[in-house]
Amino acid sequence: MTRETPWQVHLSGEIHTDWRERIRAAARERNLPVRFTAPVTDHAASDDVGVRILGEEQDAFWRDRKGAGINAIRTRTQLERADLVVVRFGEEYRQWNAAFDAGQAAALGKPLVVVHPPGLGHALKEVDAAAMAVCAEPEQVAEILEYVTREEAGEAAGAR
Amino acid sequence: MTRETPWQVHLSGEIHTDWRERIRAAARERNLPVRFTAPVTDHAASDDVGVRILGEEQDAFWRDRKGAGINAIRTRTQLERADLVVVRFGEEYRQWNAAFDAGQAAALGKPLVVVHPPGLGHALKEVDAAAMAVCAEPEQVAEILEYVTREEAGEAAGAR
Amino acid sequence: MTRETPWQVHLSGEIHTDWRERIRAAARERNLPVRFTAPVTDHAASDDVGVRILGEEQDAFWRDRKGAGINAIRTRTQLERADLVVVRFGEEYRQWNAAFDAGQAAALGKPLVVVHPPGLGHALKEVDAAAMAVCAEPEQVAEILEYVTREEAGEAAGAR
Amino acid sequence: MTRETPWQVHLSGEIHTDWRERIRAAARERNLPVRFTAPVTDHAASDDVGVRILGEEQDAFWRDRKGAGINAIRTRTQLERADLVVVRFGEEYRQWNAAFDAGQAAALGKPLVVVHPPGLGHALKEVDAAAMAVCAEPEQVAEILEYVTREEAGEAAGAR
Amino acid sequence: MTRETPWQVHLSGEIHTDWRERIRAAARERNLPVRFTAPVTDHAASDDVGVRILGEEQDAFWRDRKGAGINAIRTRTQLERADLVVVRFGEEYRQWNAAFDAGQAAALGKPLVVVHPPGLGHALKEVDAAAMAVCAEPEQVAEILEYVTREEAGEAAGAR
Amino acid sequence: MTRETPWQVHLSGEIHTDWRERIRAAARERNLPVRFTAPVTDHAASDDVGVRILGEEQDAFWRDRKGAGINAIRTRTQLERADLVVVRFGEEYRQWNAAFDAGQAAALGKPLVVVHPPGLGHALKEVDAAAMAVCAEPEQVAEILEYVTREEAGEAAGAR
Amino acid sequence: MTRETPWQVHLSGEIHTDWRERIRAAARERNLPVRFTAPVTDHAASDDVGVRILGEEQDAFWRDRKGAGINAIRTRTQLERADLVVVRFGEEYRQWNAAFDAGQAAALGKPLVVVHPPGLGHALKEVDAAAMAVCAEPEQVAEILEYVTREEAGEAAGAR
Amino acid sequence: MTRETPWQVHLSGEIHTDWRERIRAAARERNLPVRFTAPVTDHAASDDVGVRILGEEQDAFWRDRKGAGINAIRTRTQLERADLVVVRFGEEYRQWNAAFDAGQAAALGKPLVVVHPPGLGHALKEVDAAAMAVCAEPEQVAEILEYVTREEAGEAAGAR
Repeated sequence: MTRETPWQVHLSGEIHTDWRERIRAAARERNLPVRFTAPVTDHAASDDVGVRILGEEQDAFWRDRKGAGINAIRTRTQLERADLVVVRFGEEYRQWNAAFDAGQAAALGKPLVVVHPPGLGHALKEVDAAAMAVCAEPEQVAEILEYVTREEAGEAAGAR
Repeated sequence: MTRETPWQVHLSGEIHTDWRERIRAAARERNLPVRFTAPVTDHAASDDVGVRILGEEQDAFWRDRKGAGINAIRTRTQLERADLVVVRFGEEYRQWNAAFDAGQAAALGKPLVVVHPPGLGHALKEVDAAAMAVCAEPEQVAEILEYVTREEAGEAAGAR
Repeated sequence: MTRETPWQVHLSGEIHTDWRERIRAAARERNLPVRFTAPVTDHAASDDVGVRILGEEQDAFWRDRKGAGINAIRTRTQLERADLVVVRFGEEYRQWNAAFDAGQAAALGKPLVVVHPPGLGHALKEVDAAAMAVCAEPEQVAEILEYVTREEAGEAAGAR
Repeated sequence: MTRETPWQVHLSGEIHTDWRERIRAAARERNLPVRFTAPVTDHAASDDVGVRILGEEQDAFWRDRKGAGINAIRTRTQLERADLVVVRFGEEYRQWNAAFDAGQAAALGKPLVVVHPPGLGHALKEVDAAAMAVCAEPEQVAEILEYVTREEAGEAAGAR
Repeated sequence: MTRETPWQVHLSGEIHTDWRERIRAAARERNLPVRFTAPVTDHAASDDVGVRILGEEQDAFWRDRKGAGINAIRTRTQLERADLVVVRFGEEYRQWNAAFDAGQAAALGKPLVVVHPPGLGHALKEVDAAAMAVCAEPEQVAEILEYVTREEAGEAAGAR
Repeated sequence: MTRETPWQVHLSGEIHTDWRERIRAAARERNLPVRFTAPVTDHAASDDVGVRILGEEQDAFWRDRKGAGINAIRTRTQLERADLVVVRFGEEYRQWNAAFDAGQAAALGKPLVVVHPPGLGHALKEVDAAAMAVCAEPEQVAEILEYVTREEAGEAAGAR
Repeated sequence: MTRETPWQVHLSGEIHTDWRERIRAAARERNLPVRFTAPVTDHAASDDVGVRILGEEQDAFWRDRKGAGINAIRTRTQLERADLVVVRFGEEYRQWNAAFDAGQAAALGKPLVVVHPPGLGHALKEVDAAAMAVCAEPEQVAEILEYVTREEAGEAAGAR
Repeated sequence: MTRETPWQVHLSGEIHTDWRERIRAAARERNLPVRFTAPVTDHAASDDVGVRILGEEQDAFWRDRKGAGINAIRTRTQLERADLVVVRFGEEYRQWNAAFDAGQAAALGKPLVVVHPPGLGHALKEVDAAAMAVCAEPEQVAEILEYVTREEAGEAAGAR
């Protein structure tokens, strides 16, 4: 009996806390049929990738452009493949790339879940309004995943 | 020799009768290459999922919004993945969500089969007119699936 | 100085009350840059159109199919052209076609506004969750239209 | 002789400085065939629109949701209609909605121009990498518009 | 008060009878807001256009290819622009191009009306099943157009 | 080392000769990475499927409609999944469904190969002009498949 | 009586000869309902536009990038709006941008006409194979435009 | 634990040097989850395929057309399936097909990497501006692939 194709879930945004690990751990505990993708979360590796591979730049603007181009190859493919996009915002940094990913997800018609401390609600109201769910803790994302992938009795029953 | 990819069939609509089980049983008997998906059919679990995961609400409207958002993550992905969408209408309840799913399926270009008692024909005429087939009994859906997935002699013959 | 293209707003759903006239009157008062479309609201004309033009049918099912086909030509084109789709649900009738239109609008990425008495909220929770706004009175739709089409100072200032 | 259809340019982002006015003034001086659209830039009107039209809310989260929903009707239609999307980031505030609009524009395949002080380059590198042009002053946007809409000798020469 | 944009209706298929003229006459009588497009119906001009403009060919196959390419520029643009595609089949000739146009219209999501003598029903069943309406006389098409473009009381009432 | 995903090839059109078997046999001999799909080629089963499953009809038109609807579920899914669509036209019958499938394939952007006796070239010129290749014998289709799926030295070399 | 919307024709490629002027003159003579668009054909203005508006660059690579970005805003919008894309290749220069535009036009589903000296046929075979017509002289393009926009008797007859 | 789906990478362009082999070798060394596709790089086989399978032609133009049609079946499917398109330009030949493929990739929204000697930068500026990365050596492509497919700690951790 064939199981349903796993859900592919992209985890975008904040890279300075352990929120991705917490979602993964909670998903593992629940044995969920889910595959996660993420940006490269090693900050230095991500910032340097452009000039490391494509050659050094004097100007910081072009240095950043080279790195952002390569990171965009990864992100765009992960967004296109995702069944669900989760975006996390934290108190620190501008995190414009997180909001940019959320905008791409919305326009691509991907279901969006936003995770942020309640205090950021007003600043994130446009992003939240485009989301199917807004929560504060990573474990809530795992609960959502458990629910949306829960198999109904006999769901794959006809499959050879 | 590789077999064709199974058809994914989404079963939307009425949750108070055993119509899904009857289709699954009939598909199992026929050993059809089909995978079924469905909404969560435990009514209380479905109604409560929003506030259970995302936190309680005073206002019934927002309580419903939270639940509907999470259910929409599940439904939207299942509709997008479906090769065929089957929608069942019964005598009871308004079942606006069933008609809403049918409208989404039609606009996404998904083949649509509608199942309802003959007496509902006039009220459902717009939905029926968008369907490839309209029938009254779940077993007829299994017969349709048997026909559309029936393998022609030598169909996969070239595949390694 | 060129003005912006008017917004095309489709008014779907209930045909037994004067809700469309109330929106139009309120829009006229406000002199809004909006064009409205609607299904044929003469119930008998709508029900009979299929057999009147394409020939009589014995069977009620095919009678309805013929009429629904011609109405769908009108509705589909109006939905495709709409910048905003407003769907009204009332206490009477099943109104599955209204929910079907809402589903099509959602899947086509059209902004959706739903109008219904508050008491229908639970039954309409899936439709409401897909809407940008939910309200009870037609005049609120005109207020929304006034806001979304309001011209910012100098908005068309560069246009020859 | 028919002139080409004007370009529709959406001006998203920062609402506390006069950058939109500067672009419009510079476009007017150059007599460019351009129409501008923008969000409602009256901050209070924008924040309050949801509860003003749809009814008061106790909870700030739902208050914001109602307002963001109505603003999204406006923004989404303006983005869909735009030939070019210009997004401005400033030193103050988080401006996640600006980055969210940029993400939508990118995924919709709309050409994107980003305007920001040079010092924000590193924080905006993902957004900048998706842009066709990045500049610091609003007048540069008018210069770009002048170039991209410049009529070649005889460009409309065949048109009756 | 702005009127609605006229409907663009493409008339594909049979070129040996006066069915297009009959539809146009009936539309003119009814003063319908409709624009018609059609292939070039001068048979010789259509067959020869390729070699006349692009140079003679020895081989009949490439002679036909050149002509069909230029005709396809016209047809494809007319189909893309159409709100409604009408395809006429008659007793004579194979008319594979008519069925080919119908297939394109169906896949592009364009509403389809098919006109043919009742006796061709079995041979055309796949095409008819994709149509919103099937009729035998050109005047019925005009009646359909009258219905689908009929203006509801006050339909454009809000437009400046 | 992972092999490339097999190509899915849909074989549409004529059902009275052995052309599909000849393509399959030639593909099997060459051991090609190809999966074939086809309509149900048992003529009576195909014609009767609608009334057999959905109930008898008096009127031949609706009898055909029911059957065509179910066959369309099969065909539409097979066309959507196909990497290549092959359409065969023969001397007999009108075969409008074959041209209809070719039109759908063209509008869906699927590469198209047409197989027909040379004498039908003028009647099929619009269909042929939309094709990537036109040939007369089924074995030529197998040769095309061999070429387009031929693995370059080391093509999958990086795959784990 | 409303005339059909003019065709918008984009003229891409070679900028060193007068081929665009010849097409325009021939279209003017024939009084065709066509609007032409083109890249900026002043070579220096095109090459310098990036650094002139966005600031000087040391590195030739980034100098070119800035200019190409602004030119792409113009080209992309003109391609999106075009009903027909004409691409001209000449004997001199690499003209990779012309082939790049042709590839974009093909993938966007725009009808493509290619103009080049016969001697370049082998080098351009992939581009030619994607075209609806291939010719050597600009006047042939005007003849094609005359044919595809030729009005059938009574074509706009129903329009008010 | 399920691994992520491999990336499919299409290698378009120059066929006279060993650049594809160098990328494949570098990917193999790194054990990357990547599958490569490519055009048929046997020049004579590619040029002759049309007339070999479909029959000889007198005229070189149609000879080329037949071959290009069959090669396009292969290329189009490989481009549609690709997660990343790499296009290589060299000093020799016009390579218009490489730029044509790049244009298709860009319009299909596929991430693009361009490989060329630095001296070709000015001639390729429009193509480079559409790319996520531009480099000179094939091994740099493998480094990019290593980065974009690099698995984050626990990335597939939830998958059963």
